[in-house]
Amino acid sequence: MNDSTLYKAWLQDERKPEGDPFDTYRRLLGRIVVKGEQHARVLSTAVAELINGLQAMLGIQPEVLNELPQEGSCLVLRTAAEPVSGLAHEVPRWDTGRDAFALRWVSADGTERMELDGTSASGVLYGVFRLLFGISRGWEPVRLVTEEQPANQLRMINQWDDADGSIERGYAGASIFYREGEIVRDLQRVRDYARLLASVGINAISINNVNVHERETRWVTEEYLPEVARVAEVFRDYGIALFLSINFAAPLSLGDLDTSDPLDEGVRQWWAEAATRIYRHIPDFGGFVVKADSEHRPGPFAYGRDHADGANMLAEAMAPFGGLVIWRCFVYNCMQDWRDRSTDRARAAYDHFKPLDGRFHDNVLLQIKNGPMDFQVREPVSPLFGAMQQTNQMIEFQITQEYTGQQRHLCYLVPQWKQVLDFNTHAADAGAEVKHVVDGSLFGMKYSGVAAVSNIGDDESWTGHPLAQANLYGYGRLTWDPELSAERIAEEWADLTFGDHPEVTHPIREMLMASWSIYENYTAPLGVGWMVVPHYHYGPDVDGYEYSRWGTYHFADRDGMGVDRTIAKGTGYTSQYFSPNKEMYDSLEKCPDELLLFFHHVPYSYRLHSGKTVIQHIYDTHFAGAEAAEELMHTWAAPALRDRVDPRRHAAVANRLAEQAEHAKHWRDVVNTYFYRKSGVPDERGRTIY
Amino acid sequence: MNDSTLYKAWLQDERKPEGDPFDTYRRLLGRIVVKGEQHARVLSTAVAELINGLQAMLGIQPEVLNELPQEGSCLVLRTAAEPVSGLAHEVPRWDTGRDAFALRWVSADGTERMELDGTSASGVLYGVFRLLFGISRGWEPVRLVTEEQPANQLRMINQWDDADGSIERGYAGASIFYREGEIVRDLQRVRDYARLLASVGINAISINNVNVHERETRWVTEEYLPEVARVAEVFRDYGIALFLSINFAAPLSLGDLDTSDPLDEGVRQWWAEAATRIYRHIPDFGGFVVKADSEHRPGPFAYGRDHADGANMLAEAMAPFGGLVIWRCFVYNCMQDWRDRSTDRARAAYDHFKPLDGRFHDNVLLQIKNGPMDFQVREPVSPLFGAMQQTNQMIEFQITQEYTGQQRHLCYLVPQWKQVLDFNTHAADAGAEVKHVVDGSLFGMKYSGVAAVSNIGDDESWTGHPLAQANLYGYGRLTWDPELSAERIAEEWADLTFGDHPEVTHPIREMLMASWSIYENYTAPLGVGWMVVPHYHYGPDVDGYEYSRWGTYHFADRDGMGVDRTIAKGTGYTSQYFSPNKEMYDSLEKCPDELLLFFHHVPYSYRLHSGKTVIQHIYDTHFAGAEAAEELMHTWAAPALRDRVDPRRHAAVANRLAEQAEHAKHWRDVVNTYFYRKSGVPDERGRTIY
Repeated sequence: MNDSTLYKAWLQDERKPEGDPFDTYRRLLGRIVVKGEQHARVLSTAVAELINGLQAMLGIQPEVLNELPQEGSCLVLRTAAEPVSGLAHEVPRWDTGRDAFALRWVSADGTERMELDGTSASGVLYGVFRLLFGISRGWEPVRLVTEEQPANQLRMINQWDDADGSIERGYAGASIFYREGEIVRDLQRVRDYARLLASVGINAISINNVNVHERETRWVTEEYLPEVARVAEVFRDYGIALFLSINFAAPLSLGDLDTSDPLDEGVRQWWAEAATRIYRHIPDFGGFVVKADSEHRPGPFAYGRDHADGANMLAEAMAPFGGLVIWRCFVYNCMQDWRDRSTDRARAAYDHFKPLDGRFHDNVLLQIKNGPMDFQVREPVSPLFGAMQQTNQMIEFQITQEYTGQQRHLCYLVPQWKQVLDFNTHAADAGAEVKHVVDGSLFGMKYSGVAAVSNIGDDESWTGHPLAQANLYGYGRLTWDPELSAERIAEEWADLTFGDHPEVTHPIREMLMASWSIYENYTAPLGVGWMVVPHYHYGPDVDGYEYSRWGTYHFADRDGMGVDRTIAKGTGYTSQYFSPNKEMYDSLEKCPDELLLFFHHVPYSYRLHSGKTVIQHIYDTHFAGAEAAEELMHTWAAPALRDRVDPRRHAAVANRLAEQAEHAKHWRDVVNTYFYRKSGVPDERGRTIY
Repeated sequence: MNDSTLYKAWLQDERKPEGDPFDTYRRLLGRIVVKGEQHARVLSTAVAELINGLQAMLGIQPEVLNELPQEGSCLVLRTAAEPVSGLAHEVPRWDTGRDAFALRWVSADGTERMELDGTSASGVLYGVFRLLFGISRGWEPVRLVTEEQPANQLRMINQWDDADGSIERGYAGASIFYREGEIVRDLQRVRDYARLLASVGINAISINNVNVHERETRWVTEEYLPEVARVAEVFRDYGIALFLSINFAAPLSLGDLDTSDPLDEGVRQWWAEAATRIYRHIPDFGGFVVKADSEHRPGPFAYGRDHADGANMLAEAMAPFGGLVIWRCFVYNCMQDWRDRSTDRARAAYDHFKPLDGRFHDNVLLQIKNGPMDFQVREPVSPLFGAMQQTNQMIEFQITQEYTGQQRHLCYLVPQWKQVLDFNTHAADAGAEVKHVVDGSLFGMKYSGVAAVSNIGDDESWTGHPLAQANLYGYGRLTWDPELSAERIAEEWADLTFGDHPEVTHPIREMLMASWSIYENYTAPLGVGWMVVPHYHYGPDVDGYEYSRWGTYHFADRDGMGVDRTIAKGTGYTSQYFSPNKEMYDSLEKCPDELLLFFHHVPYSYRLHSGKTVIQHIYDTHFAGAEAAEELMHTWAAPALRDRVDPRRHAAVANRLAEQAEHAKHWRDVVNTYFYRKSGVPDERGRTIY
């Protein structure tokens, strides 16, 4: 299994043919000179990855040297000990400069040489993968020349894996980390995962679900830390720092104390000792991820304290060791009365956290979901971005497709993330895009970055849907460089994963690029969200969340639908944005079509900027979406593509696409029928609605 | 725990005071003469129950004699060996006469004597419980005089317990039979359950879920039969025959054969051997319960055979031992396309089984759910009753409150069952009520009876909601005598359970009698059914089953709602009834209000016989239902009642009623809001709808 194309994902290493450019590489890379922190584990990893990759793809057995040879071609790897011109080095742990690298192609004294300089061993590792990617894609050496450093400090993955081996919102099998309450013995698969993550620049991972249950609460105890340390060791080899999600009530839950009050001296002492214990086992431990006072998880509220009290208490425990506290802002009233239209879940994160700006210690980061609700196919950007100017912040994306087809439907999410990162908060006159909040440049944050919920499990393809690998790849690449286009990332990924055949990669790129819009079309319209089967979040149920306690409503009646979040008549949520976003969303006329129903309640006859009425838009998009889903299936089945993809991968994708096409029709018919029965307005084009 | 009033249910045995009538009993019952099958285990049970009951309630220690004493009072117990005048004896196993008893109060030679004659040991046991009930209620001896035999042969309970200890549709804790894949070691609780069942005349039980999983498939193997036999032994003591639900594909699933084709000689042989094996371990084994070709359970269809082929094959295996095959008729297409309005799940049982009438062996019984759908709060009677005139039949009720509040809401179901049993099928000119189909008298069936899905679990109160005990009690009593009124059963149960205080039992009886209508009022209107959260079946979700594969739709649009099952324009389901039921249901004018939406699609403005429009009926009943649910809570809280019920039982019920009152408001508001938003028709009385 581990040798299958499904498993190798974008790290395919099939043997390249004779001829250029591969012969050039065979000539250039026969000798590797390694200079710098030669004993750093990450550097060993980099050298090993390089040698393995070259052996597999080029069939050469490179010689490793310590010094530049007198003559002839070679590749020189250097780390920070050998300064790299123009790039920072000897930088603090989370500085982006630490991970910088330069790849050069030097022609001197009649011999060609490649040079890979990293500001750290991690930088070298990233450069090695970049070099291997280039060879894999058959690029000429000159195309590889680059100097790069990642845009973001923390480039993080959140696993929502539970100790029992299940994964909350996991759609690709069971956990690769846990089985029956224990960390798995054989960590080979975890190592292979670390490799995939490092290859796209990930440098941090939290390995357990933010909902920390009884078992995982004990990961920070002396009993389990040796086990956790085994996992940390695997990730350390790939330059990835390990974090744990912790239970805020741990001192109480573990029976050590009778309180978890963050201002209680005993509790502070307990966490200080926990931190000491953790760092004894894992000296480069990253820190804690905390979901507190959210969806029934314990937190400081029980003791009349606030989020700053809670986060700072943990931050003080971690500070002596350079550890971080990542505090999630996904806090809202999950026991809302649906009858109450004045409460607005969308407001919650801002209302909770904005007043605390400036109160958090400098090793605390707030982790804010991209939108104000919960990873819907379409929602506006969270107004917290830009609003907290004295607080370290990270953005949280969701790679696992909870509300976007659960890896049974194709939904390439990079365009969505990019739209979020490019969103101008208008918190300042310039440079106020979300990407400059989370890269720390806008407000000069000490720590910042990007996190995302992983989409992998123990499925052979990692991600269930083989094409969903593009989301994991794309997340890493976009986090490294938010200026990359979604198309370019799709193209890179398709090339690496399926080989550089335009007959294959061009249609795949097109399929990926179209997929978010296709999924949006046949699911919930115009930004209103939800309309899914409660709890499962797969499949249509228009009223599924309408009369629930979750704060997630569309308010559709026989006349119209949508949520009025305006200042004058609605919940006032629009006031949380800076001008001119505030006015844009608050105005029925200016509000973009795709978010109309998120911000406004309108009659079905309301005419969009597109010229269509809302009801006709619903019908048209749902018919179009289902049709396009079927088209995806046909594109994939076309002989030119089919004949160039190995049969197992082809069949695996074909099966998912067939399910999607069928299920998209169900979505289409349920949503259209629901609104037709309610509105009584017939489809202008007379298509079948039930 | 086992000594609590919750656990004792209706077998309370608190010490009675001095004075009459108790002193009369103390005088009469000081000596017990036992004649007849003295070594029968059931007779020993009867004597032991009697002695224990008299000791507890009267504080006497009766002397047991073999012969009538020369003088003085006594109680004489006699079984069939001693003929009972006017009642049958020496009767076949399932004849109702076998369970008959007579209680007499004889005054002769200056001494008083009580006589309890049974046509079998079971008859004596039933008489003993009746005697103890009378004492418990403080009745004078003369009120106990009776001659009775049960109306129905098979008076059966179906457990839907799984080997893992869970109970499908169980709302009262875990299984008392199984834990972690095994039958429990300590069967004391099972014995206490057998006692409760025998006290109301139950004489058969199937001990595992009709959905037979991998583990329970093995109950019929040599490995597990000794375990099953332990359970059979417990029930045998109380005159209750043990049945097993079997997996039709067992020969295949257990790996013995590569087919389960009922016409395959090897398969027939396999079941014959299974039967031999079972009867070696359990000589009085009752037989099999079979769910086949239903909701993905295996059955004869896989081999191109029909239900008669399947059932008869099993029947032949059981025949040599007098065993029965109970074949469920809950067969329908559970993969229906909701877009297809021509398929009608209500038709399915009739369409499947009616053509097979006359083809089943005489030790096969068809078990038919009371209605054509699935235990909804209101549905018509299944048209199969009366339609199959050459086939043994049983009716299946559901005591566990799957769709009727899950023992969190009060819903006394005896009135519903009674309405079903009293329904005139018009299959003959006289005596064609359902009760005469299932008592076997209408068509002279060899075997017939009543089965019901149990509502008990390992909760201290057995049933979760303490007042739900009334449903288990009432099921037994009604099955014994369908002529009993629901009120009388409620009164008996309340007296036995809470003691004979009118301040307590009168309001409880009123609460019970009102409860079905209350629950119906705030849930789904006018017989349309469903509108519940899929899978869980608790709580409102009007569209929950509307776009599903289950064949369960209301077709509500902005103009009207209901299912057209008429002959001319609808699915033709009404044609499955005999005249004049057929015409009654088929006619919009004649159809009873409470089933209107089951049979007809009408506009919201349609006026019911009640004079109200459909939409106003929905609003009014939902307001009334929620108000009445709150009233239940107040009734229970009234001091005159509260002060006479022990605090634990009072609190247990009060908690459930409080939850019901709150949840009823949620039901009310969701349903009213749904229909208001859809119809646009305001409430005539201007009450709040959201």
